[in-house]
Amino acid sequence: MEPKIWPERADWQGGSSFNSLFPFMDIPATRDLSNADYAILGLPFDGSTLLRPGARFGPRAIRAAFSLLDRYSDNPQQRDPPYSQLRVVDYGDAPLVSYHPEETLARTQQAVETLLGADVQPICLGGDHSLSLGCVRACAAKYGPLALVMLDAHPDFWTSPPNLTAYHSNWLRVAVEEGAVDPNRCIHVGFRRSNSMTILDRVLASNITVVTTDDVRRLGVGHALEAIRKVVGESLYISLDIDCVDPAFAPGTGVPEVGGFTSIEILELVRGLKGLPVVGFDVMEVSPAYDHAEITALLAATLVYEYLMSRL
Amino acid sequence: MEPKIWPERADWQGGSSFNSLFPFMDIPATRDLSNADYAILGLPFDGSTLLRPGARFGPRAIRAAFSLLDRYSDNPQQRDPPYSQLRVVDYGDAPLVSYHPEETLARTQQAVETLLGADVQPICLGGDHSLSLGCVRACAAKYGPLALVMLDAHPDFWTSPPNLTAYHSNWLRVAVEEGAVDPNRCIHVGFRRSNSMTILDRVLASNITVVTTDDVRRLGVGHALEAIRKVVGESLYISLDIDCVDPAFAPGTGVPEVGGFTSIEILELVRGLKGLPVVGFDVMEVSPAYDHAEITALLAATLVYEYLMSRL
Amino acid sequence: MEPKIWPERADWQGGSSFNSLFPFMDIPATRDLSNADYAILGLPFDGSTLLRPGARFGPRAIRAAFSLLDRYSDNPQQRDPPYSQLRVVDYGDAPLVSYHPEETLARTQQAVETLLGADVQPICLGGDHSLSLGCVRACAAKYGPLALVMLDAHPDFWTSPPNLTAYHSNWLRVAVEEGAVDPNRCIHVGFRRSNSMTILDRVLASNITVVTTDDVRRLGVGHALEAIRKVVGESLYISLDIDCVDPAFAPGTGVPEVGGFTSIEILELVRGLKGLPVVGFDVMEVSPAYDHAEITALLAATLVYEYLMSRL
Amino acid sequence: MEPKIWPERADWQGGSSFNSLFPFMDIPATRDLSNADYAILGLPFDGSTLLRPGARFGPRAIRAAFSLLDRYSDNPQQRDPPYSQLRVVDYGDAPLVSYHPEETLARTQQAVETLLGADVQPICLGGDHSLSLGCVRACAAKYGPLALVMLDAHPDFWTSPPNLTAYHSNWLRVAVEEGAVDPNRCIHVGFRRSNSMTILDRVLASNITVVTTDDVRRLGVGHALEAIRKVVGESLYISLDIDCVDPAFAPGTGVPEVGGFTSIEILELVRGLKGLPVVGFDVMEVSPAYDHAEITALLAATLVYEYLMSRL
Amino acid sequence: MEPKIWPERADWQGGSSFNSLFPFMDIPATRDLSNADYAILGLPFDGSTLLRPGARFGPRAIRAAFSLLDRYSDNPQQRDPPYSQLRVVDYGDAPLVSYHPEETLARTQQAVETLLGADVQPICLGGDHSLSLGCVRACAAKYGPLALVMLDAHPDFWTSPPNLTAYHSNWLRVAVEEGAVDPNRCIHVGFRRSNSMTILDRVLASNITVVTTDDVRRLGVGHALEAIRKVVGESLYISLDIDCVDPAFAPGTGVPEVGGFTSIEILELVRGLKGLPVVGFDVMEVSPAYDHAEITALLAATLVYEYLMSRL
Amino acid sequence: MEPKIWPERADWQGGSSFNSLFPFMDIPATRDLSNADYAILGLPFDGSTLLRPGARFGPRAIRAAFSLLDRYSDNPQQRDPPYSQLRVVDYGDAPLVSYHPEETLARTQQAVETLLGADVQPICLGGDHSLSLGCVRACAAKYGPLALVMLDAHPDFWTSPPNLTAYHSNWLRVAVEEGAVDPNRCIHVGFRRSNSMTILDRVLASNITVVTTDDVRRLGVGHALEAIRKVVGESLYISLDIDCVDPAFAPGTGVPEVGGFTSIEILELVRGLKGLPVVGFDVMEVSPAYDHAEITALLAATLVYEYLMSRL
Repeated sequence: MEPKIWPERADWQGGSSFNSLFPFMDIPATRDLSNADYAILGLPFDGSTLLRPGARFGPRAIRAAFSLLDRYSDNPQQRDPPYSQLRVVDYGDAPLVSYHPEETLARTQQAVETLLGADVQPICLGGDHSLSLGCVRACAAKYGPLALVMLDAHPDFWTSPPNLTAYHSNWLRVAVEEGAVDPNRCIHVGFRRSNSMTILDRVLASNITVVTTDDVRRLGVGHALEAIRKVVGESLYISLDIDCVDPAFAPGTGVPEVGGFTSIEILELVRGLKGLPVVGFDVMEVSPAYDHAEITALLAATLVYEYLMSRL
Repeated sequence: MEPKIWPERADWQGGSSFNSLFPFMDIPATRDLSNADYAILGLPFDGSTLLRPGARFGPRAIRAAFSLLDRYSDNPQQRDPPYSQLRVVDYGDAPLVSYHPEETLARTQQAVETLLGADVQPICLGGDHSLSLGCVRACAAKYGPLALVMLDAHPDFWTSPPNLTAYHSNWLRVAVEEGAVDPNRCIHVGFRRSNSMTILDRVLASNITVVTTDDVRRLGVGHALEAIRKVVGESLYISLDIDCVDPAFAPGTGVPEVGGFTSIEILELVRGLKGLPVVGFDVMEVSPAYDHAEITALLAATLVYEYLMSRL
Repeated sequence: MEPKIWPERADWQGGSSFNSLFPFMDIPATRDLSNADYAILGLPFDGSTLLRPGARFGPRAIRAAFSLLDRYSDNPQQRDPPYSQLRVVDYGDAPLVSYHPEETLARTQQAVETLLGADVQPICLGGDHSLSLGCVRACAAKYGPLALVMLDAHPDFWTSPPNLTAYHSNWLRVAVEEGAVDPNRCIHVGFRRSNSMTILDRVLASNITVVTTDDVRRLGVGHALEAIRKVVGESLYISLDIDCVDPAFAPGTGVPEVGGFTSIEILELVRGLKGLPVVGFDVMEVSPAYDHAEITALLAATLVYEYLMSRL
Repeated sequence: MEPKIWPERADWQGGSSFNSLFPFMDIPATRDLSNADYAILGLPFDGSTLLRPGARFGPRAIRAAFSLLDRYSDNPQQRDPPYSQLRVVDYGDAPLVSYHPEETLARTQQAVETLLGADVQPICLGGDHSLSLGCVRACAAKYGPLALVMLDAHPDFWTSPPNLTAYHSNWLRVAVEEGAVDPNRCIHVGFRRSNSMTILDRVLASNITVVTTDDVRRLGVGHALEAIRKVVGESLYISLDIDCVDPAFAPGTGVPEVGGFTSIEILELVRGLKGLPVVGFDVMEVSPAYDHAEITALLAATLVYEYLMSRL
Repeated sequence: MEPKIWPERADWQGGSSFNSLFPFMDIPATRDLSNADYAILGLPFDGSTLLRPGARFGPRAIRAAFSLLDRYSDNPQQRDPPYSQLRVVDYGDAPLVSYHPEETLARTQQAVETLLGADVQPICLGGDHSLSLGCVRACAAKYGPLALVMLDAHPDFWTSPPNLTAYHSNWLRVAVEEGAVDPNRCIHVGFRRSNSMTILDRVLASNITVVTTDDVRRLGVGHALEAIRKVVGESLYISLDIDCVDPAFAPGTGVPEVGGFTSIEILELVRGLKGLPVVGFDVMEVSPAYDHAEITALLAATLVYEYLMSRL
Repeated sequence: MEPKIWPERADWQGGSSFNSLFPFMDIPATRDLSNADYAILGLPFDGSTLLRPGARFGPRAIRAAFSLLDRYSDNPQQRDPPYSQLRVVDYGDAPLVSYHPEETLARTQQAVETLLGADVQPICLGGDHSLSLGCVRACAAKYGPLALVMLDAHPDFWTSPPNLTAYHSNWLRVAVEEGAVDPNRCIHVGFRRSNSMTILDRVLASNITVVTTDDVRRLGVGHALEAIRKVVGESLYISLDIDCVDPAFAPGTGVPEVGGFTSIEILELVRGLKGLPVVGFDVMEVSPAYDHAEITALLAATLVYEYLMSRL
């Protein structure tokens, strides 16, 4: 019998038709987790985006962009790519519901719990940032309150809109209030929204550490990495909103914010995670309709690659 | 009197047509309905779209595209454009909630009811097609069960997904089941989805009349117009999903379907509405992120213009 | 053990990194042909293109575009899409060599022969048109000289360039000269290149029947279908170069030619194949870098769908 | 000594830096007119455009697009393309002044007069439509009042704006009033602007014949060609504004107007000019910044090619 | 009191930020200056652009892009955005004449004088850089010779072309020669045109201070800010040509020049203006047809926002 | 007789129809080398590209982009641009064969040898990087083993694929093994491919010096320039693959790699070549279909300009 490599189609919908099913990095596309330590999980959803939608196509674009990056080792004695030393599979996409943020959040959490239940670390491709709440809920259920590094232009700490507990601009606040994330071991790197000063006050009041892009520019990436290592501890989750990068380097996102990291800076930040006790990782808010020449998707794919390399 | 918020138009030029502030068609932008017979209402929402999102930016794009169309009459004795003989205002947008289809539907209905309460005919710019349900609910509340012409590639007659009564592919079924639309006076023009044959059976079983694009190609636009006039009667609502047009003419939409109307055919269809007792009109599913050179938005703007001309 | 669903990577290359591995139409992605009657085969190659390259990404784009088309039947008693009544699999891509037209041609032929050897009909997604030669060679090896319908703007009958027997503008001439295609049962529909009159003479001299776009415009699609049925017979191969369609409907191709078919005309042509004894089918020359809003890829995907429907 | 193939640079400006100097159709790029009967002349200017500018890059784009069209004859005995039977040169661009419509008009006229003085027929690539006035002025100076076929979505008959006699929407009115064009031998094919009814009255009152796109749709291209042959006579000038074509086929233009000709229709119209006593020809208003996949430029290039073929 | 023409903002959301009618920054759109200290003035014109036109659409794009930036303060006790502490209105666009640089310049000056006459500071959105001459003429008429900071890739100091005193590459020279700008209090930051060395000599000879991008790279933004504070004095005008930024960050402009500022550098430069006695500000040369994903327009909008913040 | 300024058309092909024949920098377009010291040579080919093709249109795009850069000196006593002090001609394109890497390589070498035979330095515009092998072969034939600076994201040191000695990812290895390049005087600046560590070992083992982008970021451009001057000596060839620059600054390329040089860094690197004994220079891998707003082509054109300035 042929194993099915994509999610069961929802009854009424015929499946998320924007799913992206071909595998990332030529790794096995499978739902069999028995030989895996890491699993790619697509989260194709943008239903809580207030501005430019389209991140539902993010997972597909990131997977496709990997074809620009993948190269086997040119060593006749070692033909496999370095990441083949890790046991990674592409688990496909979670079966999300484009119009239903709460149901989607629950299904995200459930998909991540399935991975964690098999002792597989989730590596999520998004998708709007609200879904990181589902990820940290699942991780916290297994590991207790998490340390968190959020790489993001925005604090995601706004109040809840009517009839919606969590959306892509407040998921971190909800996660902290629920106890899924321990604010004392939480650091937000990349803050730069000028007109958000009152929100910054509230983030700081919650005991979250903040490193702004101005700090990074003045003090260097090394400063940010030191701050990260000082704050976080065990059970660390890494959440990377691609809008932490400048729109010149990552135009394909929903809420671009000028003045962000360069590609080199974000590469150094992700490479600098080496040795940290990470339990989950995500790259979110890639919105291909606003990308060009695949540069945003390629950056996201490279960041996943670099994260995996940091695990060796 | 409403203060004018845009520069006086130069005599010969019809104003800087690339101004950024002017409302649709240089008509007054106002919430004062006391001197209006028609009101443009933007419906910036795409939260029930299952495929490519982005129609939330449709109203903005259609308004902007009007600057490519607007010309004053070059008659020194009649300087105003023909549509100035109608009393039209631009009412702005309804205050919709991007993540909440049901709340949005209610607010749409409420906004349309406000217009109707002032004896003003709604002309809606969308936005995903689910919102036409809000429009017909409001119209039916005033006029009783409506006659309906739906110009659309798809029948919008699917079953409801879990936790959502209405979305952009089933609003017509809901409207018929609720009694807001009278199926015996309802006609769907433009059906062409090959893989929807079972759904077509159900549409026909409901007594809705269907004219396919194949029918139009074989028998002509005149045939479709005759069918329309034969079916519909009083209290007619016109709902135009821009995807009834072929993607070559209207790429900027969420669920493009090849084999659709040409621009000339849809113009003839809309012009052919002259004399019909229309109580409401909408142009839906314009999604600018997939448009190029503004051709979809320009077509939508022209169709609104042509509809207004058909009212003279 | 997990079946591998993509081709073995060539030693030196790391695989065609532009392969497109997620399955078309939600059908099984598999190399197991034991339960299949039809197999999708991607041909990601553009190495014989003299003008705008990029068709190597065609198979990926066509597969992705299917997500805009796919819908399950809305019939609770028949949940599967109509094409599920056919036994279709997605076989993945042939392992082609981007810089080597001859090797690629041989590999294409070999891949098609594998399908035919399992009594599976090939449905190829291209890729430049030279590869149709590989397809017809394989089919002719099984069925003898083929009848052929070529839907194309160009006659593909030029002389061979130095050091290259076959390229995307002469494959048909080679196929006829080799005997793989029987010119008396061969018809070219869509010819319109004004500056190719001497080539047209040579095509006609070879006994191939030609129906130009002017003929179709004057006499209708029905005329072309009659001509097809009159000319062809058993063992029919259908080769559809997307440039037979006008660039307005199919901009994403290498050698666009104005004045082509509309989307409706090509749909009617493909639907009109019903009942013909087809042994192979391809859609070639889709070049996504020149597409916009996926309209070319969507048209190609729809044409494959319609072809499959014509087999019921 | 090397002949210079491009215009002298204006003193202050360094030449029109958007000039497009590589030759059209592989014909000789030269200012030597001694062996020419036809000369391509670029008119890179958009300074009288009221809406979307950019037609200054039209000549460059049309020349580049020819590379998609050019093919030598495949006849070993006749290796040259058919148009090589005509004596055509590419004269380069006229030295226009982007900010000065009147000076530009004078320079256009002067450049065309140079061609005519050498008994060479001008074939102009635009550039905004105001420059056709310079062309017809030059032609009328040699041939007397001209017959004219204007293929255009708009009547170009508006009144003059302050401080500007001629611009791209009134050049025909000026030409008629000056006597350069004889309205009794003048026909406008393609009119379709709904909101220009009063201007249409004035066009008709001037004795110009008008064939609308509706007429063409109802009565066929043949009807338009008959009307042309009935109206025009000696000394015929052909002016083709690319916006006569529908935006789906020609998005790259300044004032797109939905509901226009298809590519096939405009090809038939231009081919139908065969035998008419044409003294000058232009293709205007190609604006590449709004084009995609070069489809507008390719159409314009093909129309020039077809016009040349009609001269054989 | 000015009637509000756009929907009430939802409590938590700051309104549908993709509304199509709202003015820049949700500030009142009005010609009533009685309650204003700052006024946004659009200058939609590109008639003196020698290379890529399109900046006439700049004001519209910058206003639209603000919807990506606008957020209300999330402080329940302070719901308004920080800039609401300033009294800013959106005055709409000046009524410019696309084909007439001199008339346009006069109208620009007149519009700015109207603002200044009401003691309102102009904040102009362009539009080509020639119009800054109209702005400084108006400001100098009120304040006497101005100090000036010009952020620009080019010196705008060329000689005048024939028949045109001022255009977008010489407006500063004209302003200095007229006495509207005092060269001893004038500084040009961002010069980097390699092939303009003789022009640089002339700029320096006029006593204008020049800080090149090389200087900024070697010595830091702080160096440029020090130089600015050292040079300028009272009655300072700030003119920001978006091409001072690198094309990677601001592709949407007419004369891109590689090697420019990053987004962070230009943000620091504008923020560094705090405390300076500015009498007028403009952001010019935004040309949306060359932008993608709105990144240039968003940068321009952010720079206006940051300038306003620097006034608190 | 008119000198022909473009290559003879190949018999079977009608010339490379993507040739780009209008001259770069307003310099003479000629095949007469008698008054030249430098010659621009286009290399329109991408047949060895394994990923995104399209660099065959690079030469055309770079030439066109020069129009954004070209300015005459504004000095009345010196009206010519600085580069007019050099004797530069545009020699047109080499007559390459799109489907035949080996034949193309030979023709490239032959075209460069023609230039060198006339004591003219080649300045090549590409085109895929494999062709640099043809350039260095020709230069080495004249000058002996070359010193080389390769500015590139990738080491181009892979093994050969079957049936192909050289392609765009191994040309440097071939050149070193052949002896055309002396590895001891060869330096690769810009290496950053994370998943290529084994290849880096092999590069280093060959005695080539490598400066990574990380080195440049940590130690500055000056460090790289020092390393270059330390390594290279006489007979220096400079090969610049545009992908050494970050995709934000140069999206229009075949194998983009995030984390590259900024535009300022690459400008400094090229300017830093002043005084070095260069015998040949190329800018390769510009692929316009992936560019936007011409920013990649403009960067390439500027780099050629800067290189020429470094020769003064």
